[in-house]
Amino acid sequence: MISITSRCGERTPPRARRPIPVCLALLALLLGLLLALPGAAQARALPDEDGYALWLRYLPVQQVAPLRAVSAAVAAPAATPTQVVARDELRRGLEGLSGRRPAAVDGVPRDGVVVLGTPASSPLVAALDLDLAGIGEEGYLVRSVRIGGRAATVIAANSDIGVLYGVFHFLRLAQTGQPLAALDVTQAPKVKVRVLNHWDNLDRYVERGYAGESIWDWHRLPDWLDPRYTDYARANASIGINGTVLNNVNTSALALTPMYLDKTAALASVFRPYGIKVYLSARFSAPIEIGGLPTADPLDPAVRRWWKDKVDEIYRTIPDFGGFLIKANSEGQPGPQDYGRSHADGANMMAQAFAPHGGIVMWRAFVYSHEEPDDRHKQAYTEFVPHDGAFEPNVLVQVKNGAIDFQPREPFHPLFGAMPGTPLMMEFQITKEYLGFATHLAYLAPMYEEVLRADTHARGPGSTVAKVVDGSLDGHALTGMAGVANIGVDRNWSGSHFDQANWYAYGRMAWDPYAGSADIARDWVRMTFSTDPAVVEPVVGMMMGSREAVVDYMTPLGLHHLMGRGHHYGPGPWVEGGPRADWTSVYYHRADARGIGFDRSAGGSNAVAQYAPPVAAQFGNLETVPEEFLLWFHHVPWDHRMASGNTLWDELVLRYGRGVDEVRGMRATWAGLEGRIDPARHHQVAVFLGIQEKEAQWWRDASIAYFQTFAKRPLPAGQAAPPHSLEYYKSLQFPFAPGDGK
Amino acid sequence: MISITSRCGERTPPRARRPIPVCLALLALLLGLLLALPGAAQARALPDEDGYALWLRYLPVQQVAPLRAVSAAVAAPAATPTQVVARDELRRGLEGLSGRRPAAVDGVPRDGVVVLGTPASSPLVAALDLDLAGIGEEGYLVRSVRIGGRAATVIAANSDIGVLYGVFHFLRLAQTGQPLAALDVTQAPKVKVRVLNHWDNLDRYVERGYAGESIWDWHRLPDWLDPRYTDYARANASIGINGTVLNNVNTSALALTPMYLDKTAALASVFRPYGIKVYLSARFSAPIEIGGLPTADPLDPAVRRWWKDKVDEIYRTIPDFGGFLIKANSEGQPGPQDYGRSHADGANMMAQAFAPHGGIVMWRAFVYSHEEPDDRHKQAYTEFVPHDGAFEPNVLVQVKNGAIDFQPREPFHPLFGAMPGTPLMMEFQITKEYLGFATHLAYLAPMYEEVLRADTHARGPGSTVAKVVDGSLDGHALTGMAGVANIGVDRNWSGSHFDQANWYAYGRMAWDPYAGSADIARDWVRMTFSTDPAVVEPVVGMMMGSREAVVDYMTPLGLHHLMGRGHHYGPGPWVEGGPRADWTSVYYHRADARGIGFDRSAGGSNAVAQYAPPVAAQFGNLETVPEEFLLWFHHVPWDHRMASGNTLWDELVLRYGRGVDEVRGMRATWAGLEGRIDPARHHQVAVFLGIQEKEAQWWRDASIAYFQTFAKRPLPAGQAAPPHSLEYYKSLQFPFAPGDGK
Repeated sequence: MISITSRCGERTPPRARRPIPVCLALLALLLGLLLALPGAAQARALPDEDGYALWLRYLPVQQVAPLRAVSAAVAAPAATPTQVVARDELRRGLEGLSGRRPAAVDGVPRDGVVVLGTPASSPLVAALDLDLAGIGEEGYLVRSVRIGGRAATVIAANSDIGVLYGVFHFLRLAQTGQPLAALDVTQAPKVKVRVLNHWDNLDRYVERGYAGESIWDWHRLPDWLDPRYTDYARANASIGINGTVLNNVNTSALALTPMYLDKTAALASVFRPYGIKVYLSARFSAPIEIGGLPTADPLDPAVRRWWKDKVDEIYRTIPDFGGFLIKANSEGQPGPQDYGRSHADGANMMAQAFAPHGGIVMWRAFVYSHEEPDDRHKQAYTEFVPHDGAFEPNVLVQVKNGAIDFQPREPFHPLFGAMPGTPLMMEFQITKEYLGFATHLAYLAPMYEEVLRADTHARGPGSTVAKVVDGSLDGHALTGMAGVANIGVDRNWSGSHFDQANWYAYGRMAWDPYAGSADIARDWVRMTFSTDPAVVEPVVGMMMGSREAVVDYMTPLGLHHLMGRGHHYGPGPWVEGGPRADWTSVYYHRADARGIGFDRSAGGSNAVAQYAPPVAAQFGNLETVPEEFLLWFHHVPWDHRMASGNTLWDELVLRYGRGVDEVRGMRATWAGLEGRIDPARHHQVAVFLGIQEKEAQWWRDASIAYFQTFAKRPLPAGQAAPPHSLEYYKSLQFPFAPGDGK
Repeated sequence: MISITSRCGERTPPRARRPIPVCLALLALLLGLLLALPGAAQARALPDEDGYALWLRYLPVQQVAPLRAVSAAVAAPAATPTQVVARDELRRGLEGLSGRRPAAVDGVPRDGVVVLGTPASSPLVAALDLDLAGIGEEGYLVRSVRIGGRAATVIAANSDIGVLYGVFHFLRLAQTGQPLAALDVTQAPKVKVRVLNHWDNLDRYVERGYAGESIWDWHRLPDWLDPRYTDYARANASIGINGTVLNNVNTSALALTPMYLDKTAALASVFRPYGIKVYLSARFSAPIEIGGLPTADPLDPAVRRWWKDKVDEIYRTIPDFGGFLIKANSEGQPGPQDYGRSHADGANMMAQAFAPHGGIVMWRAFVYSHEEPDDRHKQAYTEFVPHDGAFEPNVLVQVKNGAIDFQPREPFHPLFGAMPGTPLMMEFQITKEYLGFATHLAYLAPMYEEVLRADTHARGPGSTVAKVVDGSLDGHALTGMAGVANIGVDRNWSGSHFDQANWYAYGRMAWDPYAGSADIARDWVRMTFSTDPAVVEPVVGMMMGSREAVVDYMTPLGLHHLMGRGHHYGPGPWVEGGPRADWTSVYYHRADARGIGFDRSAGGSNAVAQYAPPVAAQFGNLETVPEEFLLWFHHVPWDHRMASGNTLWDELVLRYGRGVDEVRGMRATWAGLEGRIDPARHHQVAVFLGIQEKEAQWWRDASIAYFQTFAKRPLPAGQAAPPHSLEYYKSLQFPFAPGDGK
């Protein structure tokens, strides 16, 4: 300090005045440090790296100059809650990313103004006379323009919420280090209803939840509005999610009582500025349980009246309520079949109650009755296809991606393409009930992508599932996608840092079912971990291979439903007995001395016949079925020769081992990133990958120990024998594993 | 900036050199700002004011100079984990509080060094030749000394953990703004075993938990050690807690299986440096459930062998394991009486297994059998007093503060003073099962203090409960205090900011049962909210009156056990029927046309006879019983004349109203503090006080509506009639209220 100040005060000839610039420069440097140093900008955003900020971290970008050049100021209306939210998010994001808070301006007094608005809310936007006709209510433009000769960026839409979506798009470009000087983005969602399904009970227990209990603190609602609700809304809006079903499909009827409607209304008030509607799961027998009626028969006038009155009551409390999600006549839930009525009877009764209010009914096709002896794979198709075209126009039939239940890999559900007269909504599971809970790293977007790109052949080649879901194949305007949420009170929301990517990717693919999973992964890694290519590329590589690894170490070659009973934790290929055959593992793998697999070909359950003929032909033929679905559709001899040249038994063992090896590879890759990722998150991921490797090994060992009792063949050369006896693996008990459907 | 720099570069006569100081001053100012500004120090500590930091916030103090004068450097050993923890905590705390990181030094090269250590660990401490004989293994000295002519502060003890306690004491003095220049503190705990009891199930559900689910993430243990475990240990060590019982007293036997012992060992490894031992609740029937034995008879040799082997196994896994907590033959739990054996038989069997390892057994006296028709108040005494002196020396009998169950006010438990031959451990409840869950502001330390200061008269006047608990009355060396924890995964740990104070105060009073609740409150407010007297005094005032307010609006004048059934949420004075009479409200209030109250005098259940004669005489006489216990011990006519001159009925109504008024007063006080407390916490507390006022009103209205059906008298003048009918209050249902003992 002494040397600096002595130079600053140095006596010099008056004419030279050299000390002035020196002093100026030093002071400017210090002031600059003081005002713009990472300290100020990062202090807020870098507390613990605990994952709470999700992909909205807004840390300073590497190259700050190009960003500052286009974000000196913001010209934005603030007359509505959504306008305020859009403006504030933009300024918060830009301040974090650029280290400088953009000024609020009314016009475009200089270069580098970001202009937000709709033609109605912003005279600046109106004057640009943009073509907003094709982007609908939720789409937006992000465009580099000149206004009054000055360079500006306009984020324009037909609605406030479109502007907010555009703001998040612009911020994403900045976060991921994209060029910002010559933007010309036009975006509109391809799916109308993009919702999360929370399987959250009213006591905060989350069925299949691995991230702690429900974030909905029902007991303290409606008074206490946890700030987390706002961050939840921000995160969802940032990826285009526009609705949330708050409660479990297995619900108590009490969710529809006035006390809970008041609580729901309070949440709706938080979510509304972010364009997120609330929906509720409704219990079909609610007219009995909370209405005091003797029946819930959907053709009974008193029942119909009760639902109409209940829906009217809801809209008095929540004027923009979204609608109901219904699980009926499935896994013990009540439904119209209890009264000899059809799913269409039940759904339409409710839909008629919603029609005056613009609400919808999402009616789940995940049904299989206790009485039905046929292959569970076939039941949804059998029950629903006959009613195609019979549903009210505000009904969406919500179909899981596969016919069994969110397995690591399933062929696409045969209902897709089979109900052209009915809008079918996709139901993906984001929470990893069958893919290692929250500790295993398994990026699910490649699985979503695989299903969406599958070709149903319903209207000839190219009739992809995506085209069914987005309505383009059959001309439906009401379209939807649901994701079963992986969100809980864990500080990082999803139970692990990498599971945030599945929430993120689901939102992006609900907005655009044609989006690529690798592109989404790349965006997410850049926003969440680092824009350093030495981080991005290896991490994207880990993610893209991760789901296939899970398939390999849990259920290779089309095996499915082999997990522990009830909680679904760990391997349980030996599970048998209990209340129903199709809740066991032996029902699905059918291993015996001859071979293994579920024969769903024409010679077996003939589930393949539910697919369009070209698909049925491919899947139904042992020669043409893709190997990844081999044991899904066929019972195959142990010595069947695989494409690799190995026998089925050898290939099965090798696949299990390959899965474990993949996890080892992820661990090594991750270990190599130490120092490039903050220690807190690096450490947690490293520990979780260690858990994953142990559990992958356990899956491999237990599965091989069990299936070898049927195959009675040696392991291929170099493959280690399981270190424990089969009895040991069978003896392991986990009664307190999380997320059990209790 | 221009004006500043132009002055700095101003041309002046050489001799004057006035610009130099200006420039110097400015640069120094800027540099000073840059280096020492709150920015740097606060950035880490001021993220969200979400309460996570508890009372260990370490924010910059108002007067930094005196602190810096005594904390320029730290001379501390770092050869053991506890030494490292003590040194790091001190440096972390001082850095936050003073804005300057103290240097690490080996000797005392200047004034202002803090010297840590034991005579064995630190030559500096050894050279001081301090008298450490009287402070035991956990006590400490904090003393201002001179070393080599330089001013220093020594924190010395006989053990590393004593040093850590001393560090927290020194930091507390700094945090609360006490003088630090002439310290002479000598402290040693008055109670040996100071433990939290977590009523946490292995599935993370917390019985009577109002702060979210259990912080023990059993599923991901032992691999994943949540950083929260370390902060839990820090917080507990800071208040002298030296043990924790991890699982609910109503426990599954599986907690003792190898899988859970490995998980427990992992937690123990985190807690060990902080001087915190782990304990487990053990299910008495574990030899049957996980041992495969046909019986759990404590006199059966195989059973005794099983427990001995199990305890040996535990110590192989956790060499410093603390011991067991047992709930036996109480509320349906198995126990020795199932085999015709006594509590002493059961406890001694386990104690003998622990004796070789130095472990202890905490055997709960909270017992009441399903068969016993007598006043529940009397049962613990009846069952335990006959076994006084029969317990092994490493058994503590753990007694709740009152004979019923953690009511807002209870007379002290008659067991205190009645078992001189047995060390009795106090069990307080920190979680507010009966005092408004986490939303009501109720500072419990005055209640703890009231019980600890109560005079049992067991050995004449002055035989306080505190003297029973600290062993001084009857000469016991093994002493203990347990607090049923209010900790969960909520970001602020306790479900509300003010409930942190109950955890804090419990720890302080377990260390020193003679500590004053107001002093503790003052410390806590200064550490947690502000040292501004304009905050401290009003907030301490709110806290000190808060528990009496709860008594008034829930259960005035000795009423008790009037809450909703099962979940214990809200008023339920009408609760009757069900499995047993003493789980109802009508059993306790006994209101009828004549009056109200439970006659426990000689003419009634004669529970008073369990107290020492002077106490029995006082409580048993309507003329001498303190009014706060009036209806606890007597059935009193509605027109009984109270000290105030009112009739009982009028007084009862007025007390209810007074409770509501007290809450209104707290709201007003708190509203007046806006701007003096960070907005996030101020807002949450304000919202919670709003909930409390609504619920206090509800308690008052429902209780009056109900009791008026017996009293059949008008309300006193000016007292508003309940706004709803009694039927309305009775109709309210809360099946999903948190913490139910499901």
